[in-house]
Amino acid sequence: MQINILPEELPRCWYNILPDLPQPLPEVKGDLSVAAKILVGECVNQEFSNQRWIAIPEELWLNFQKSGRPRPLFRATNLEKALKLPPGIELYCKGEFQSPTGSHKVNTALTQAFFAKKEGKKRLVTETGAGQWGSALAYAASLMELDCTIYWVRAVYNWKKSRRYLMKFFGAKVFASPSKNTEVGRNLLKENPSHPGSLGIAISESIEDVLSHPDTVYCLGSVLNCVLLHQTIIGLEAKAQLQKINRYPDVIISCVGGGSNFGGLALPFFGDLFREGKKIKFVAAQSEGAANLKGEYRYNFADYAGLAPQFKMYTLGHQTKLPPIKGDGLRYHGCSPIISLLRHLGLIEVKTYPTDEKYVFEKARLFLRTEGWLLAPESAYSAAAAIDEAERAKEAGEKKIILFNCSGHGFMDMEGYHQVLRL
Amino acid sequence: MQINILPEELPRCWYNILPDLPQPLPEVKGDLSVAAKILVGECVNQEFSNQRWIAIPEELWLNFQKSGRPRPLFRATNLEKALKLPPGIELYCKGEFQSPTGSHKVNTALTQAFFAKKEGKKRLVTETGAGQWGSALAYAASLMELDCTIYWVRAVYNWKKSRRYLMKFFGAKVFASPSKNTEVGRNLLKENPSHPGSLGIAISESIEDVLSHPDTVYCLGSVLNCVLLHQTIIGLEAKAQLQKINRYPDVIISCVGGGSNFGGLALPFFGDLFREGKKIKFVAAQSEGAANLKGEYRYNFADYAGLAPQFKMYTLGHQTKLPPIKGDGLRYHGCSPIISLLRHLGLIEVKTYPTDEKYVFEKARLFLRTEGWLLAPESAYSAAAAIDEAERAKEAGEKKIILFNCSGHGFMDMEGYHQVLRL
Repeated sequence: MQINILPEELPRCWYNILPDLPQPLPEVKGDLSVAAKILVGECVNQEFSNQRWIAIPEELWLNFQKSGRPRPLFRATNLEKALKLPPGIELYCKGEFQSPTGSHKVNTALTQAFFAKKEGKKRLVTETGAGQWGSALAYAASLMELDCTIYWVRAVYNWKKSRRYLMKFFGAKVFASPSKNTEVGRNLLKENPSHPGSLGIAISESIEDVLSHPDTVYCLGSVLNCVLLHQTIIGLEAKAQLQKINRYPDVIISCVGGGSNFGGLALPFFGDLFREGKKIKFVAAQSEGAANLKGEYRYNFADYAGLAPQFKMYTLGHQTKLPPIKGDGLRYHGCSPIISLLRHLGLIEVKTYPTDEKYVFEKARLFLRTEGWLLAPESAYSAAAAIDEAERAKEAGEKKIILFNCSGHGFMDMEGYHQVLRL
Repeated sequence: MQINILPEELPRCWYNILPDLPQPLPEVKGDLSVAAKILVGECVNQEFSNQRWIAIPEELWLNFQKSGRPRPLFRATNLEKALKLPPGIELYCKGEFQSPTGSHKVNTALTQAFFAKKEGKKRLVTETGAGQWGSALAYAASLMELDCTIYWVRAVYNWKKSRRYLMKFFGAKVFASPSKNTEVGRNLLKENPSHPGSLGIAISESIEDVLSHPDTVYCLGSVLNCVLLHQTIIGLEAKAQLQKINRYPDVIISCVGGGSNFGGLALPFFGDLFREGKKIKFVAAQSEGAANLKGEYRYNFADYAGLAPQFKMYTLGHQTKLPPIKGDGLRYHGCSPIISLLRHLGLIEVKTYPTDEKYVFEKARLFLRTEGWLLAPESAYSAAAAIDEAERAKEAGEKKIILFNCSGHGFMDMEGYHQVLRL
């Protein structure tokens, strides 16, 4: 079964959780003047806004439609059958995988590119880990007729050829990071000419690039309040879709790296929790190798070199080496300040899965064979946690409406699945 | 802009053009008892049905929803702008690429698997060229809990690793064709142990496999009347979508190999032409290297070995070697009898493009950079023909509503694009 609303019913506002948080978000530490200089102006305004509903400009709203929004909500009836779930336990999957570049990242990419263009910028710069964010920004830049440069963690750049071609097909310039373009990059290459890189290093390179070029702006694919704000379109759509069939979720689940796809789905429902006292269980699915929500809650840099300001967040430390996983998008040392605060308040359960990824990929296989959708490795964590939650509810004899986010597709990740599952 | 209907508005019937054709479809020649034995029974009934509207069974209709139907119709406003089209020339793209396996093929795969299961079959067998059809059948078999065996043209099998993994991830058994499983295959391998294969050979292997195994049924991804029937859901959806904005197409365009995606979009509109005298121009986009609609209109075998019956169709000859192209899905010697008859009646214009594919891939690049959707190599031909038609109309000062089918996505075809465009 599919549940959807019409394109003309697409939400017209984002939901900003800041005014509804039970306590203020801890302040950012450090020199914000740099951030203000390199980021899209409108995004900086949104970052600290106290306005609950922020209107989506009409032209951008039409671009969301162009990107395929609203995206369907699927009731996973075949999966329910395979799990022998009793009536009353229902699984709903939000289909963010139906995206032009394969993930939810386009929601904020289109937004940042739109405002950058409006502010007279000519060029977007960013870093990417898994490659989903880089592709999304390349897409958005292309639609808005802007130039785009991407610093891509070398270890991933080397093997994800298809995604590299995709970014270039969109017209983006793509560099393996560390690169020769920046001071940070050149220093690291001196130590090790085939340095594998990290997301933190690539962020440092991006910031240095933006600071040394005119009309250029830095775009960020996760962590920031404004990025989570842009992603709330996911949760707002899902809420409207569930309303059509008179359902409201008891459990909301998604994978968490920087926190943007989780936040996008969950924040509008957190709003209901804070404003209307709704009871909802929130589950964040993570890799044991990058379980930043099980780290320390403290001030930490967002990037490797410490060029970015410090956020109060759950972190594993900004220079900690994380083991490689196929779900690269979950491989980041810190979690978004908003999600971190919600976790700190005891409102988010964290479920972690082994670094060899066999367990989560087997769940992705079950989801594929029953529902037919090929998940991104990151989304395999969401499906695994949703399945685990359903089985827990079944054992406990509880009724549960479970909503989970499938943030991306895996058409460009088959090699990763093969390496783990030997297809 | 996106135009869509709700899942609950998904058409409930397929449109069968047979009773509306201005002259009867030439009869199939040869022993039909074999075909009747190997095909899904309900498909054989549909093949010769004279019923105009054929109801889609409820359970299958829900599976269509599960596969993401209805799929959006996009007005390609950015592309229109890039082409500097005057008001009155509008481009509408049907988004079949939003499919679980990447193409429109799932529409008939789900249908054949559904009826096979109903008829007590346990195993589906087929051949595949580009790999889209094989993936679609693997998907459908998995959803219906049936076994699936796929004979894949070796030349393509060897380099499309990701798609091979995908079929196996769904649980299908996949063999490079010619294979050791069949007499036909073994004979060809004796001549040449690394025989590159062809679609015709793979069809022969599939038929032999089915004939020698119980509870097994042969599924075909194109050419047959019933396959085109199943695909009419595309055109019926598109018509309902265009109605919502008070539009009716002047020109309908799609790429043609066996003819199923073209037929799926076009046949419901041909119905309007025959029954209501609507004036519509139909354009089939093909490769110069496989322009079967520019071949001879005569009886010919559908397969290489001549095991299948003979159809009256436009053909290049069933043992003719066709040059390799990235749009493998268009590389078949003959065209579906229905499309062939419509062509014979002078109702379809054929537009061919050079075998090096540079021209069509450049149009796919333009479509990607303006609209953001990554087309399958086959769909690049549709986009090219739509763009050419729009430019022709512009020069002629005509108003035109142009509807074209984008039958698949290219996430698993980036290597092909790279080889031609050097990304």
